[in-house]
Amino acid sequence: MNAVQRIGKLLNPRSIAIVGASPAPNKLAGQLIPALREGGYEGAIYPVNPRYQEVAGLRCFASVGDIPGEVDHCVIVVGKERVPQVLRDCRAKQVPGASIYTSGYAEASGDGRQAQRALEEAASALTFIGPNCMGFSNLAGRVMAAPSAVLKRADGVGDVALVSQSGGLAYATLAYYAQRDGLGFSHIVNTGNSAGVSYGDLLEYMFQDPATRVVLAVTEAERAACEVIDAVRRLGLRKPVVLLKLGRGRTGARMALSHTGSLAGDYRLVRDVAEQHGIVCADDVDQALGLCELLRHGFGAEHAEGIASLCISGGNITLFADQADAHGLDFAELDAATEARLAEVLPDYISVHNPIDITALGYENPALHADVLDVLLTDAAVRTVVPILTTVDDYTEVCRLLAEVRGRTRCAMIALWNGGSYETASREILREAAIPVFHSAALLAACLQRLRRAAGRRAPMPAAPATPAADGAPRALRESEAMQWLAGHGVAVPPQRACARAGLVEAADELGYPLVIKADSADTHISDQDSVILNIRNADELAQALQRVARWQDERVLAMRYLPGQELVAGVLAHPQLGQVLMTGSGGQWVELLKDVRFVALPASRDELADALAGTLVGRALRSRFRGAAGFDEAVGLLAALAEAALRAGPQVAQIELNPVTVGRHGAVAVDAAVYLRA
Amino acid sequence: MNAVQRIGKLLNPRSIAIVGASPAPNKLAGQLIPALREGGYEGAIYPVNPRYQEVAGLRCFASVGDIPGEVDHCVIVVGKERVPQVLRDCRAKQVPGASIYTSGYAEASGDGRQAQRALEEAASALTFIGPNCMGFSNLAGRVMAAPSAVLKRADGVGDVALVSQSGGLAYATLAYYAQRDGLGFSHIVNTGNSAGVSYGDLLEYMFQDPATRVVLAVTEAERAACEVIDAVRRLGLRKPVVLLKLGRGRTGARMALSHTGSLAGDYRLVRDVAEQHGIVCADDVDQALGLCELLRHGFGAEHAEGIASLCISGGNITLFADQADAHGLDFAELDAATEARLAEVLPDYISVHNPIDITALGYENPALHADVLDVLLTDAAVRTVVPILTTVDDYTEVCRLLAEVRGRTRCAMIALWNGGSYETASREILREAAIPVFHSAALLAACLQRLRRAAGRRAPMPAAPATPAADGAPRALRESEAMQWLAGHGVAVPPQRACARAGLVEAADELGYPLVIKADSADTHISDQDSVILNIRNADELAQALQRVARWQDERVLAMRYLPGQELVAGVLAHPQLGQVLMTGSGGQWVELLKDVRFVALPASRDELADALAGTLVGRALRSRFRGAAGFDEAVGLLAALAEAALRAGPQVAQIELNPVTVGRHGAVAVDAAVYLRA
Repeated sequence: MNAVQRIGKLLNPRSIAIVGASPAPNKLAGQLIPALREGGYEGAIYPVNPRYQEVAGLRCFASVGDIPGEVDHCVIVVGKERVPQVLRDCRAKQVPGASIYTSGYAEASGDGRQAQRALEEAASALTFIGPNCMGFSNLAGRVMAAPSAVLKRADGVGDVALVSQSGGLAYATLAYYAQRDGLGFSHIVNTGNSAGVSYGDLLEYMFQDPATRVVLAVTEAERAACEVIDAVRRLGLRKPVVLLKLGRGRTGARMALSHTGSLAGDYRLVRDVAEQHGIVCADDVDQALGLCELLRHGFGAEHAEGIASLCISGGNITLFADQADAHGLDFAELDAATEARLAEVLPDYISVHNPIDITALGYENPALHADVLDVLLTDAAVRTVVPILTTVDDYTEVCRLLAEVRGRTRCAMIALWNGGSYETASREILREAAIPVFHSAALLAACLQRLRRAAGRRAPMPAAPATPAADGAPRALRESEAMQWLAGHGVAVPPQRACARAGLVEAADELGYPLVIKADSADTHISDQDSVILNIRNADELAQALQRVARWQDERVLAMRYLPGQELVAGVLAHPQLGQVLMTGSGGQWVELLKDVRFVALPASRDELADALAGTLVGRALRSRFRGAAGFDEAVGLLAALAEAALRAGPQVAQIELNPVTVGRHGAVAVDAAVYLRA
Repeated sequence: MNAVQRIGKLLNPRSIAIVGASPAPNKLAGQLIPALREGGYEGAIYPVNPRYQEVAGLRCFASVGDIPGEVDHCVIVVGKERVPQVLRDCRAKQVPGASIYTSGYAEASGDGRQAQRALEEAASALTFIGPNCMGFSNLAGRVMAAPSAVLKRADGVGDVALVSQSGGLAYATLAYYAQRDGLGFSHIVNTGNSAGVSYGDLLEYMFQDPATRVVLAVTEAERAACEVIDAVRRLGLRKPVVLLKLGRGRTGARMALSHTGSLAGDYRLVRDVAEQHGIVCADDVDQALGLCELLRHGFGAEHAEGIASLCISGGNITLFADQADAHGLDFAELDAATEARLAEVLPDYISVHNPIDITALGYENPALHADVLDVLLTDAAVRTVVPILTTVDDYTEVCRLLAEVRGRTRCAMIALWNGGSYETASREILREAAIPVFHSAALLAACLQRLRRAAGRRAPMPAAPATPAADGAPRALRESEAMQWLAGHGVAVPPQRACARAGLVEAADELGYPLVIKADSADTHISDQDSVILNIRNADELAQALQRVARWQDERVLAMRYLPGQELVAGVLAHPQLGQVLMTGSGGQWVELLKDVRFVALPASRDELADALAGTLVGRALRSRFRGAAGFDEAVGLLAALAEAALRAGPQVAQIELNPVTVGRHGAVAVDAAVYLRA
């Protein structure tokens, strides 16, 4: 059996043992058998606990080994000290799968991490989720192997597969709000510390699972988020994936050789690379569920453009327009012919400019909603229609009209219901017509923005380039070596010459003015004002500069042409899970302060590199030639050369940072380079 | 009667005429009398409509003049063409107040604006709201003079006064969500086009109204938002005020003489100045209601710091920590003694670092919530405790414990309920204990951030400095005049000399190198590369520069010392409602792209100027001396001098923009100045 088949077995057990079963209803261990039964489980259930003869009316066994029949899955809810024996029993009984509820492992202070390593070894033959988890629910298959106050009140079945490290978020928070919003799950799998099955394998399983339409992955560990990205890179984006990554603080100084490494420590690297692969990233629970709702209805990045909207309330129209604007969404610019047709269905005091305030007239004459929508949908610029509802006594007729338009035209329609209904009938009409409903303009705008950001690749990609082993300290090249390395790999650098201090006059003759002189060490960068002299414009200034250079510690110096311009940063780092990742954006000394950067995993197409750069303020300015800014294409060319160089050098590269790359009429050149290589 | 007394009369009429009354239940005009009656109105109601003898069982009059008794308030729901006659009738009858529902005025295309001006004149003696409004509800006084699907289902009485230009947002959206969240209103006043009573007078009335604790102002017109700010400036912040300003697109090129004017056109000026005055600004409906809930419970800016939190779910803790971090909130750093006491109440595998994951142990033993809170509240660093709830079968006991802690300690407590309850009892326990409840980590974090941003002045301030009349085009000073004007008003500028081109050699001798030479015109600024030569370092370079200068159109030039540094922008504009407003932040050519600026109304204290600058990335860097950045205090000094200069020059100043001001070891100087004055 391969990993995916093993997960299939794990989530579809024909028999389940509850090791640590309890009759106490206020303990998790006491809620498992009721949850299975109420959920409609039809396989065998075996309580295991030496303290009881019977639990929940079933014969209770002293150990797993005493169970007469085959056991497909063990739910382990015993004290930490008893886990090793239970695992040995499972092995002896050849149990293939388990959920380990027991906590006190990697999440705990003290010896938790050590205990987790021991657990991983002991459980190696087993396909399991946990430890420190709350189990799984195969809702489509009626295996509710987890207690949940929410799921016991409603069947909760739907087409979203939820894989979460956090049990509280999955079984309490997300399940509760999903139920409120009418969203259901095919599976909920709570992986806890994720010592067992990987997110990658779970994702692959859900891609194949016929009951699943959208996957929602909630992760705390960066490793788990990277497994999601890696699986999508390997397999292609076979179904829409939403990622809610928790724990966004810095992961520490692990990679902080440079700005690139330092900024890579926070959430933005994972988010950018996920979006590059078409994975939609959510910031919170509301967004995660809103995105699932949009994606399961077939919405995508293309629906964040060409929006058309109408409402009986001008205030609600303006609120949505403000939020759309704040999130960079575009309303459709209507054709003159469309506006003329609108003027036919609307009285002349109503403006026909999209979005359209149909005023209280639409309250007294609900048919106006459909009339206006029908005209809007004739316009080629309109991709998505967003009728806005507020609160009136009875919305049945308006909802019926919306459903009718949607059914007849198959248009992309989202109802923004800024208020609510006093009868559930209207809501049900929209649901049956497959019209997603949002109750907040800000949330809808944020979700559409996130869909648009994830307009990334869809097809499988080559595996990530090899990264160096974690041991073996990276060696920083001297500036001149770094420049040579770059030039040798096709990355543009200024004309330059490395020499002893005494050779500077000759170097200047050869290079011409203006010049820069730097100490040629492994740790001199442009922010270090004491060992860099910029903009030496003639022999007199050179003579003055030489006096300063004479006081430097380093005998070796580097002279190069002075090529000022707009300052970018361009870096590459070897990420332990994602392989080589390139960073670009606003350069200079304030990189970490501005955080105006984007990351992109390599290999990346030239378009992907251009998109990454254009996703920053500086890139946007260059591309739009803001106030005469020039050199966007040249900057992208430099990024492509850097990416190519890094890919060719492969595992040798620990980190590269070009800061600044100057961009201007001279093109784009790396005027300062830090290159860290491993043997 | 003063304006506030007139509003008192408007909102507390002893008798109401409904002009345009209708028996049709699907028309707004038909819903007014039922709304008044169901709302418990005890005064006289007079339907007016020549088409009916009787409406809703009441005698119907042909005109206002036919009504036998006194009429305190006319609700006008007639066609636009009939409004002038109704206003004449009101005048004849000496009706003091009205609500004008009729639409087709400033909001409409065609002759709407003209009609509005005519209306304003005709109604001048009347205290009125509208036109294009949906009336008012004095909930505390039981005058429900507006139809609302929401308010007819619940009494909705509470302590928030809602003043809104949008009827749909007020009576449908906000009323609906407020009802869902258990928030009630003292008044709802829908001002529509706001031709009548001003937001300032309404605010003053609500400040005096004993039933009102918090004012929520929803505005579309910038003018209305400015009236709110102006009233708070005049009166002081007598009660908490939340402002939801809609319509955030640019207001056009009205003030766009410079970057300062251009950026002033968008929402940020209003927001910054409102926050400077302690007004809390919301971005959407959820935030507006969340802020009202916090403010009516006495929360303020100080509660966004020193947060301590606990939850049975680690995922929920992390989610809140992420959101708090994204919104710049600070968790309390616990004292070692506090952590030691926590270690006594928690088992050793639980980390005592704030925020605290009390794990499933808190599910099995709810008392742990109170035990941990009691310890946290002994720590002086803890200002606000945020217990996080998820969803369990029964939260009654936990909620009772929270209420007990809150009642005993009077601590600032907010429940973040990331999920919900299956019994309303728990929710009611929290309400009775005056513990606000939020259902989204992102929303709570955003609300606390906005509270913190509005940590502004509370006391009344002098009136805004006079602004020039709108007519009379501003005259741009020549660069040398502008510099002289600034220097004369105490603003630091570089050593400089204005002269004819022929005088440059002498000027250079006098000033010394390095130098800048600019054409001395009224429209030369540093972005104009063709008439500025930077960094001339010696006589040779001056000679080269003179060749370029010889080709300039302008005979007059300005030579000044070259003083490069970090580039700021500092501007002042005369805002038509708010008076003089100063802007500062990241300078240079990309001001409008970066939008890294803050606005502050003048007069402002030195601390307010420093806060404004520190609210930008560049200001933060300068203040924290990021990578050796220097000159924050000098920059604030320059802002103070600029503010002083603008105040002294008063209505003469149309706009001033210093861009860049360079900041560095030389201090802070304005190296380029655009000054627009009026006669």
